Amino acid sequence: MIVVMQLGATPQDISAVVQRVEQIGLAAHLSQGEERTIIGVVGSLPPTLEETLEVFDGVERIVRVSSKLKLSNWDFHPQKTRIKLLDFEIGAPELTIIAGPCSVESEEQTMSAARAVKAAGAKMLRGGAFKPRTSPYEFRGLGKRGLEILAQAREETGLAIITEVMTPADVEQVYEYTDVFQIGARNSQNYFLLEEVGKAKKPVMLKRGLSMLIEEWLLAAEYVLSQGNPDVILCERGIRTFEKETRNTLDVSAVPVAQRMSHLPVFVDPSHAAGKRPYVAALSLAAVAAGADGLMIEVHPNPDQAMSDGMQSLNFAEFADLMPRIAAVAQAIGKTVTIPSLTH
Amino acid sequence: MIVVMQLGATPQDISAVVQRVEQIGLAAHLSQGEERTIIGVVGSLPPTLEETLEVFDGVERIVRVSSKLKLSNWDFHPQKTRIKLLDFEIGAPELTIIAGPCSVESEEQTMSAARAVKAAGAKMLRGGAFKPRTSPYEFRGLGKRGLEILAQAREETGLAIITEVMTPADVEQVYEYTDVFQIGARNSQNYFLLEEVGKAKKPVMLKRGLSMLIEEWLLAAEYVLSQGNPDVILCERGIRTFEKETRNTLDVSAVPVAQRMSHLPVFVDPSHAAGKRPYVAALSLAAVAAGADGLMIEVHPNPDQAMSDGMQSLNFAEFADLMPRIAAVAQAIGKTVTIPSLTH
Amino acid sequence: MIVVMQLGATPQDISAVVQRVEQIGLAAHLSQGEERTIIGVVGSLPPTLEETLEVFDGVERIVRVSSKLKLSNWDFHPQKTRIKLLDFEIGAPELTIIAGPCSVESEEQTMSAARAVKAAGAKMLRGGAFKPRTSPYEFRGLGKRGLEILAQAREETGLAIITEVMTPADVEQVYEYTDVFQIGARNSQNYFLLEEVGKAKKPVMLKRGLSMLIEEWLLAAEYVLSQGNPDVILCERGIRTFEKETRNTLDVSAVPVAQRMSHLPVFVDPSHAAGKRPYVAALSLAAVAAGADGLMIEVHPNPDQAMSDGMQSLNFAEFADLMPRIAAVAQAIGKTVTIPSLTH
Amino acid sequence: MIVVMQLGATPQDISAVVQRVEQIGLAAHLSQGEERTIIGVVGSLPPTLEETLEVFDGVERIVRVSSKLKLSNWDFHPQKTRIKLLDFEIGAPELTIIAGPCSVESEEQTMSAARAVKAAGAKMLRGGAFKPRTSPYEFRGLGKRGLEILAQAREETGLAIITEVMTPADVEQVYEYTDVFQIGARNSQNYFLLEEVGKAKKPVMLKRGLSMLIEEWLLAAEYVLSQGNPDVILCERGIRTFEKETRNTLDVSAVPVAQRMSHLPVFVDPSHAAGKRPYVAALSLAAVAAGADGLMIEVHPNPDQAMSDGMQSLNFAEFADLMPRIAAVAQAIGKTVTIPSLTH
Repeated sequence: MIVVMQLGATPQDISAVVQRVEQIGLAAHLSQGEERTIIGVVGSLPPTLEETLEVFDGVERIVRVSSKLKLSNWDFHPQKTRIKLLDFEIGAPELTIIAGPCSVESEEQTMSAARAVKAAGAKMLRGGAFKPRTSPYEFRGLGKRGLEILAQAREETGLAIITEVMTPADVEQVYEYTDVFQIGARNSQNYFLLEEVGKAKKPVMLKRGLSMLIEEWLLAAEYVLSQGNPDVILCERGIRTFEKETRNTLDVSAVPVAQRMSHLPVFVDPSHAAGKRPYVAALSLAAVAAGADGLMIEVHPNPDQAMSDGMQSLNFAEFADLMPRIAAVAQAIGKTVTIPSLTH
Repeated sequence: MIVVMQLGATPQDISAVVQRVEQIGLAAHLSQGEERTIIGVVGSLPPTLEETLEVFDGVERIVRVSSKLKLSNWDFHPQKTRIKLLDFEIGAPELTIIAGPCSVESEEQTMSAARAVKAAGAKMLRGGAFKPRTSPYEFRGLGKRGLEILAQAREETGLAIITEVMTPADVEQVYEYTDVFQIGARNSQNYFLLEEVGKAKKPVMLKRGLSMLIEEWLLAAEYVLSQGNPDVILCERGIRTFEKETRNTLDVSAVPVAQRMSHLPVFVDPSHAAGKRPYVAALSLAAVAAGADGLMIEVHPNPDQAMSDGMQSLNFAEFADLMPRIAAVAQAIGKTVTIPSLTH
Repeated sequence: MIVVMQLGATPQDISAVVQRVEQIGLAAHLSQGEERTIIGVVGSLPPTLEETLEVFDGVERIVRVSSKLKLSNWDFHPQKTRIKLLDFEIGAPELTIIAGPCSVESEEQTMSAARAVKAAGAKMLRGGAFKPRTSPYEFRGLGKRGLEILAQAREETGLAIITEVMTPADVEQVYEYTDVFQIGARNSQNYFLLEEVGKAKKPVMLKRGLSMLIEEWLLAAEYVLSQGNPDVILCERGIRTFEKETRNTLDVSAVPVAQRMSHLPVFVDPSHAAGKRPYVAALSLAAVAAGADGLMIEVHPNPDQAMSDGMQSLNFAEFADLMPRIAAVAQAIGKTVTIPSLTH
Repeated sequence: MIVVMQLGATPQDISAVVQRVEQIGLAAHLSQGEERTIIGVVGSLPPTLEETLEVFDGVERIVRVSSKLKLSNWDFHPQKTRIKLLDFEIGAPELTIIAGPCSVESEEQTMSAARAVKAAGAKMLRGGAFKPRTSPYEFRGLGKRGLEILAQAREETGLAIITEVMTPADVEQVYEYTDVFQIGARNSQNYFLLEEVGKAKKPVMLKRGLSMLIEEWLLAAEYVLSQGNPDVILCERGIRTFEKETRNTLDVSAVPVAQRMSHLPVFVDPSHAAGKRPYVAALSLAAVAAGADGLMIEVHPNPDQAMSDGMQSLNFAEFADLMPRIAAVAQAIGKTVTIPSLTH
């Protein structure tokens, strides 16, 4: 950490900083410039030192030199994280496509969706049994019955399951049914929940919060990682900006940025980012071209009748049409997506 | 709800919308313009109808005519909410000033802060026993011991206590010690937690999330209200924008806007909004002038030694200096703040 | 336009609106619901009527039914705009790649860049002779000498030229040298300048402002179009958000959104969006996959010595390496980019 | 400037930086830490050095130690700027209230507004003769005739005039009529215009752009100041955020922040910030309490008939009612506003 002193900092100001640094067992190296003094702080920094010193008299600015990240960055984990699930691997050159309805609404709806997305090349089925809703007066999911339906879909199709868990008390129950825990954007800084899925030892997909810095997203991932669960998947799903034509603004740069900062796989959810069906295909292709390790796409047998997110869901034909286009772009950048119908 | 059809909508498109509306038991009123058809939907709308219809062929736009709010708006609650606590009332013309340290760090630190803020005119003591931290490697509060120290401060000074609860499982424990539950910005859409404090029947202060629309904030309040707990206090604490000189951007307009939309009291936390000590006073005065029902200000015996948020905390002298200025602005707009030292 | 009246609107409120509407020669159609009255306004709306009626007593909301766009949208221009320039066509399935240095710094720098980007497959050379700079104390371009150097590069390489014009008085001079006028993000609502290039009858590339709604961007294009100049190219270059890892946030959704709203070609500038060299390639590929009609990429013979934007410029080898990757993604979505070295 | 090298920077990386620094005549001071090397750069920095070094191999981060500001900050201008105009002084403890219509629409409208705002205590009349409009199809002002009407209002009432100039070619003409040039938010980075008013030697009010950092705003002011015109007034008018209930988000913190960074007076325009009449009063009072040096408020004889911005304009009675409330808050913080009716 570097402490830049103000132009007019007094010797007293400087020695107050040095004293404080030494008081907590660190070393302070002074560098007297022509105009200013700069103090280098060496040693294992307590996390709050930065804030603390920033208010000392005569201090102009603090510059943190080392990253706040410990387990999510490349420094001590030079291999990209890969997560094996059933017969595929997340983080591999073969992209993982997740698809399915926003909410599990009924056995029929979910089973038909499962079959359709499987046939089109998806490896995982998404579907919410517990739904976070902005208003308490909206449909909030089927709960346990939803989980059972997902299990049935897994049984029949062989798709891996991802479903959201919203509160620590539900982790145990969801664990029984899911292959991957989904943490939604609104819970991206629900730290008790993050630690609970960290203890549960199944992979966790962590959606980025609507106004979360990429660094904060990785720090949220550290809550899971630091509990001994190494299998975290990041999922960009659009951030909140001033633009109104799309529900959120897909931050497609988050893919290369997070991949450069971290060894964790990075997925994109084009459906929530766009919020409108006509843009889902373009955003899917953009995400793949940017290097995403996978996509999570909302698909519903009949979007017009969906109990949630109908306006951003693709129907079966639209999804089946999109998959070969995704595969083509994947191939163009040296990756693969396998489409069953094209391989037989 | 009004459904605006596109310029080229066909009779089939129109009757599909009408059919769907009638299928769920609502009435559809057609209004044929020169260029377009507009369909009025009358009856008790299911929350997802808007999304559903938006994707029908030939639909240009949906306009919701009635508010999504039920319990937080003025329609059926024409009196402003007032909350009686010990010897004062939140939402009254006498403003409620809350002050205290970010975190409860020790008995001595908290007791001295309690005495100082009491002497300066605060009615409530803030202090975190459970601290949400962006990084898992930072100080996260004293937990139960922190709650006990707060209780002791209450006992000695007569200040009411507000402290954060972060997860549903802690609600019962925090209930024993606090007068008001604080829900932090990161938990502003943690719906299980909101419902849990809704059941607990003690007042709840709901901080606005960093990128929360004011309408979403009120909908989050509905999660508490709909559990039978009428005592919700809103607290604006800065939103996330592109500006970097302040930690967050205080949305001072949120005060008159939320007060116009809702009968709930609206507070402002100038400390988290500013993030830097030199701006706390100006933002406090601005909030009072804008009509805030109260303030929550971070005060620490020794900000330079604080374990969290030191750079935005006032010391005792600064707070004692600020209070009469707050009182003067309050008086200028027809409200009051009583400063003990000035009344004796 | 639809005027939604409040729940408690009085007959007087309603007739005041009707009177005003009729006073300016429009028709008002009342639709009395159970709870509210809705007034449809029919006729050719003056642009300010919306604002005007919004403040009438008893008015809850105004809904504009027709678009504000006249020349940029598809309604009366069902063909996508194509712009022929030298031997290529902007807006065609063959993508147009623009490349070159941020600023024209010297003859040698610009000529070498021109040759290199030509060899790699670019069709147009970019280079600033007039540079908008946040600070008045920074390098602001070579001016007329810069234009002459661009003309020389055009002469030698056959590349078309695009260069920025910053003020109406310079339009005539820049017209002599450039093939396409560039309007920078900071000038995206400099209406006198937009009208001046509208009169000048050479194609105009209009960069999106840092916080411009897509609708506002198209309305800015209308300033050019309404002067009789049909050849406007839109260029997304990143918007300003809270995220700090990238200089701006590339709004990749703006590509399909603007293309759905308008017949104008949409380009992407990944260099300004990213602001950092390591992300330029991923954003270029994402933009192509999203359907962009072209790219504008900063390339410099020696980015470390660049007088502006060095940190986001590619060197020749990086650009030559990127072009075949761009071509591969273009091909994957049914478009083309021709790379000379690959065709001979 | 400090160059922080990466953990794994090689001696070659380090000497490349040092060499470059010395090549341009500056001194490089190495400081070898346990883990990293830090290089201090001493001397008069060329503005682009920061960007240049950021892309050198092995460089982790660049920290600028000195401000980019030269004339707008306190360093060499320890007195707050005051601007004398007619019988009052901008930047003095007596606040300057500017009021008047958005656009000059007619002699009658402007004269009646001038008389009304004068009677209520305003010192300056605002009114647009040239109006920037998002759409080219909206009312764009009366031009020269508008300027003449303003001059007449000045003549009769003794109010100083402020009106917007939109393009360099109009500066000479506007100069003849106005007391203060207004530069609108959309032109806040129109550098040719800024320099032109800088040469014109009349005071300039510079509105903050919708997504302008406070530092960028001050750098835009430097364009005026560096032409020898010391009389710049800053005006915060709301920034663009995700919130939709207000037209813009008033960044009230910009007042104390800009005043701490700069000696220039800081005004607030609550009308454009709010965009809705019911919030104008609260934002006016908040701005005064935050320490603004003045306000600019839209007032119209009949807002319902206004040709622009009617929904955010106060009528005469509302403005006359607001002024004593403004005066009361001003007094509460040790400033003054003189209301004629109250002093006689």
